[in-house]
Amino acid sequence: MFRTHNCGELRLADAGNDVTLSGWVQIGRDFGGLTFVDLRDRYGITQIVFDQDDNAELADRARKLGREFVIQVKGTVRERTNKNPNRDTGNIEIIASELKVLNKAKTPPFTIEDDTDGGDELRMQYRYLDLRRNPLQENIIFRSKLALSVRAYLGGKEFLEIETPFLIKSTPEGARDFVVPSRLNEGQFYALPQSPQTFKQLLMVAGYDRYFQIVKCFRDEDLRADRQPEFTQIDCEMAFVEQEDVLNTFEGLTKHVFAELKGITLGDFPRMQYDDAIRLYGSDKPDLRVGMELVELNDVAQNQGFGVFDGAELVVAIRVPGKADLTRKQLDGLTNWVKRPQIGAKGLVYVKCNADGTYKSSVDKFFDQEKLAKWAEKTGAEAGDLLLVISGEDEKSRTQLGNLRLHVAKEYDMIPAGTFKPLWVMDFPLLEWDEDSKRFHAMHHPFTSPKKEEVERMLTGDHDTMKSLKADAYDLVINGAEIGGGSVRIYDRALQEKNFELLGFTPQEAEEQFGFLMGAFEYGAPPHAGIAFGFDRLCSVMNGQSSIRDFIAFPKNNQGRDVMIDAPATIDGGQLRELSLALAVEGETE
Amino acid sequence: MFRTHNCGELRLADAGNDVTLSGWVQIGRDFGGLTFVDLRDRYGITQIVFDQDDNAELADRARKLGREFVIQVKGTVRERTNKNPNRDTGNIEIIASELKVLNKAKTPPFTIEDDTDGGDELRMQYRYLDLRRNPLQENIIFRSKLALSVRAYLGGKEFLEIETPFLIKSTPEGARDFVVPSRLNEGQFYALPQSPQTFKQLLMVAGYDRYFQIVKCFRDEDLRADRQPEFTQIDCEMAFVEQEDVLNTFEGLTKHVFAELKGITLGDFPRMQYDDAIRLYGSDKPDLRVGMELVELNDVAQNQGFGVFDGAELVVAIRVPGKADLTRKQLDGLTNWVKRPQIGAKGLVYVKCNADGTYKSSVDKFFDQEKLAKWAEKTGAEAGDLLLVISGEDEKSRTQLGNLRLHVAKEYDMIPAGTFKPLWVMDFPLLEWDEDSKRFHAMHHPFTSPKKEEVERMLTGDHDTMKSLKADAYDLVINGAEIGGGSVRIYDRALQEKNFELLGFTPQEAEEQFGFLMGAFEYGAPPHAGIAFGFDRLCSVMNGQSSIRDFIAFPKNNQGRDVMIDAPATIDGGQLRELSLALAVEGETE
Repeated sequence: MFRTHNCGELRLADAGNDVTLSGWVQIGRDFGGLTFVDLRDRYGITQIVFDQDDNAELADRARKLGREFVIQVKGTVRERTNKNPNRDTGNIEIIASELKVLNKAKTPPFTIEDDTDGGDELRMQYRYLDLRRNPLQENIIFRSKLALSVRAYLGGKEFLEIETPFLIKSTPEGARDFVVPSRLNEGQFYALPQSPQTFKQLLMVAGYDRYFQIVKCFRDEDLRADRQPEFTQIDCEMAFVEQEDVLNTFEGLTKHVFAELKGITLGDFPRMQYDDAIRLYGSDKPDLRVGMELVELNDVAQNQGFGVFDGAELVVAIRVPGKADLTRKQLDGLTNWVKRPQIGAKGLVYVKCNADGTYKSSVDKFFDQEKLAKWAEKTGAEAGDLLLVISGEDEKSRTQLGNLRLHVAKEYDMIPAGTFKPLWVMDFPLLEWDEDSKRFHAMHHPFTSPKKEEVERMLTGDHDTMKSLKADAYDLVINGAEIGGGSVRIYDRALQEKNFELLGFTPQEAEEQFGFLMGAFEYGAPPHAGIAFGFDRLCSVMNGQSSIRDFIAFPKNNQGRDVMIDAPATIDGGQLRELSLALAVEGETE
Repeated sequence: MFRTHNCGELRLADAGNDVTLSGWVQIGRDFGGLTFVDLRDRYGITQIVFDQDDNAELADRARKLGREFVIQVKGTVRERTNKNPNRDTGNIEIIASELKVLNKAKTPPFTIEDDTDGGDELRMQYRYLDLRRNPLQENIIFRSKLALSVRAYLGGKEFLEIETPFLIKSTPEGARDFVVPSRLNEGQFYALPQSPQTFKQLLMVAGYDRYFQIVKCFRDEDLRADRQPEFTQIDCEMAFVEQEDVLNTFEGLTKHVFAELKGITLGDFPRMQYDDAIRLYGSDKPDLRVGMELVELNDVAQNQGFGVFDGAELVVAIRVPGKADLTRKQLDGLTNWVKRPQIGAKGLVYVKCNADGTYKSSVDKFFDQEKLAKWAEKTGAEAGDLLLVISGEDEKSRTQLGNLRLHVAKEYDMIPAGTFKPLWVMDFPLLEWDEDSKRFHAMHHPFTSPKKEEVERMLTGDHDTMKSLKADAYDLVINGAEIGGGSVRIYDRALQEKNFELLGFTPQEAEEQFGFLMGAFEYGAPPHAGIAFGFDRLCSVMNGQSSIRDFIAFPKNNQGRDVMIDAPATIDGGQLRELSLALAVEGETE
């Protein structure tokens, strides 16, 4: 037996007992007569003492232990004289009688400490060492507990976890698929699922009533920071439900996991129309920890001789409370920030509401005190506040100012730590018109139902009608992060066909790609609706962290590579020939 | 709201209440004045009554409902006059006041009944209809419950469920990988994991101590009946453990799920040496529900003038209790069965132990009564028993007779229904010599450790020594099905290198493919061991069924195709070009 106890469980009550522990040498400290070793495992750290007077040979060997050596120690538990109250095992230590080195360790390329000296690349390459560090270990353990909690909750509500296939069919709708060549079916490919969408709908047609799955999904996208080609969803679907049932069920789930894992009681989630979210926050995922709603200034800012505003569709402001004291340099910084190509604003107007009741703005030439007072009135600004104003096209300006709002809040520490502000964003548009490709895209996905009262308009309306259709689609947002989204689904063949037609499918294409689903709708499909939560994102948001990568044991880097195992990699010619494939890499001759 | 109750929950206590139900029309029965509809959902069936006298229009509409129509009914619960004790809701019925057709249904291509008239292909094509049938639904629900039970048990034992990546690196060892071309890394491929083996070992190196995952794995094999290209494992690994710890933990898990899901208490699992399993049952997965152990007859059957036996390495028999009365035709049937190419025996000798104490054999010409009596003595045969004897090469003959043993047991109903006989098979050989390729293969996998006392022999021994090395490898077998297997792992770089060398890897190949793992062994790798259960197989064995396909919601057929969604399929040229690939299909010009 390698151990009688783990390194986190011995207490004062165990004093006098003979024990065996195994673990990693966190650190050794040599005080001449006494050598102390902190022995670490997943469960904690226990102090081991080697006494030179007791056993010189043993103490000698202990002194030679390096960091991260794996050892087994036998000894007796005794009370510590200098207790460590910060450690669960801090009241005791083990006076060692035997020591066995189970495995040596080279000096790690970075320190295994909460604050490590290792850079990103190095830690990714030695991920198994990085994973030893407390912050990462806590994240991975949290993730495991969250999954268990989600499963227990949904299992208790009659949800069945049903596995859907990973080797499915490629469809051009949505993001790019990863494909898998089939050896047994020459020239043909499977695709890895971007989500189990069609399968969970078929499970509803099959009568399973309540389905969920914590499941890997795949998207071959150009990677941005904090996006992963494989990611995990809590994927759910319910039959014989309306939107309200789904919202209540998953609000319940969210409250449950916050209570169970974080000890936080969330109140009822507010709801917001999509249109209001865009209007007030310039975003479909408003961070409600931050105030500073967008205020339209058109009627007080236009036709006053300032050409930039006069030519704009929208003049829009946020009030930054108590920030009238920003320096010229800080304000220039904000201006430069919004002018970066990622944001794309042409400029930024500011108004300082001075303590003495006067105003100082970057457009004093065009707007006198009286006029600026009207801006202040409109935005509710008081002495000491700062107004930031952007103008231009309506939607773009709102988005730019919405981004600035978040940037300012972060930059000036205006986001209260440890608070969680959930929000349902509702009534998304069904379709999105894309001017470039001159076609509609599905705002959520092609299986989303228009609101019941919109069905008639959808089946009979003209082009402009389609732009204004609202869907029974909803997103859960927490602290400005999209946790998940879902919709009521179409379950009628004719309506589904109409939607595919609007999305630019020919009837043949629709049949070829989704004929199995539309066929299923003809054999008794119940009304159904569902939702999917981003599991990685939920983990990070619940812990107030921004990177999902720190909650994934073995993530890919921004180039989609696993630098630890060095994947992807070339495969040999035999494998390619078996798959009836050839490389068509530039410069290659195959 | 679509329903106040589901179709399985109303009881006599609900009589008088107004309710709303939704579900599928299982069947309608028209008795003129009264029309009865059995309304079905996942939870059960409730009888709905439409009364012509009450509401003629409603009854009229009810008469027109077809099978599998999706309807919503409002009405009042009342006590039934003719109760149905076979149904949980059998004491009540709903007298309908409103009826709404939520969706029509075409006549299904096969009946949605326990015994359907649909053939395999048709049911696979309309899987969403097949999944409505009780037998399949029970299987899928069982699977969901089993997963929940496994997770709760392991979660309660400090196991963490940790997701490992699906997009990894192809390795030539083992079965064929499915590969996934990388668009962002031109000419390179990911592979889908055949198991999370190396990642779970890295998690042990990373200190996670106890890992599990219920996870999809992938093997691109030539498909046989009841094999799936994607399948599910309960994958586990533990650090600071010996073989005994793993066996105890997973014996505990197995007992737990049998108790919780089947109400069956399993006693302690017997253990058998691999060598004994082969010797006594001609199989490394003996079905202990069947007796009929193999008995060697060399000393009583050879050198008696029967050339076939005399030239054989082994003469081996089973005693079939009480089957001396098989007819000549039945015995010929058995002979033909073992001579099929799948079994490959040259012939079959039988001895009937007649009720009167005499013997009748197919080799009476060579063996008189006295000699046959010795066979009977050796095998413990009594009057009424039948001996079946095969001869030839040792291992082949045992395998053939082992197969015959199972065939006879099935054919003559000698397997007790509803019994479960678990068994640990232990001490597998480490390496298997392959005469064709003139190299060793790993019996379990290349990460398996030889038994501790064998390490020295492995590091220093000659070729023949290697053939005889035993590993700390074990399989769990239930009723003759391999539920899972595992091993103690190598955690020392030098030993791992030696194993790769024995398996025919050059040092460069070993480094290229598994350098990350061997590197990890140098940074403090703890002793560790693990196991993986086939989850699909566990489901089927626990339910006394032979097909794993019936426990998978959307399985592939024997050609690896999903005939419902029609996958795999061709992808368009643009997709191929993006992946820097070209088809090399015969006859194609690309």
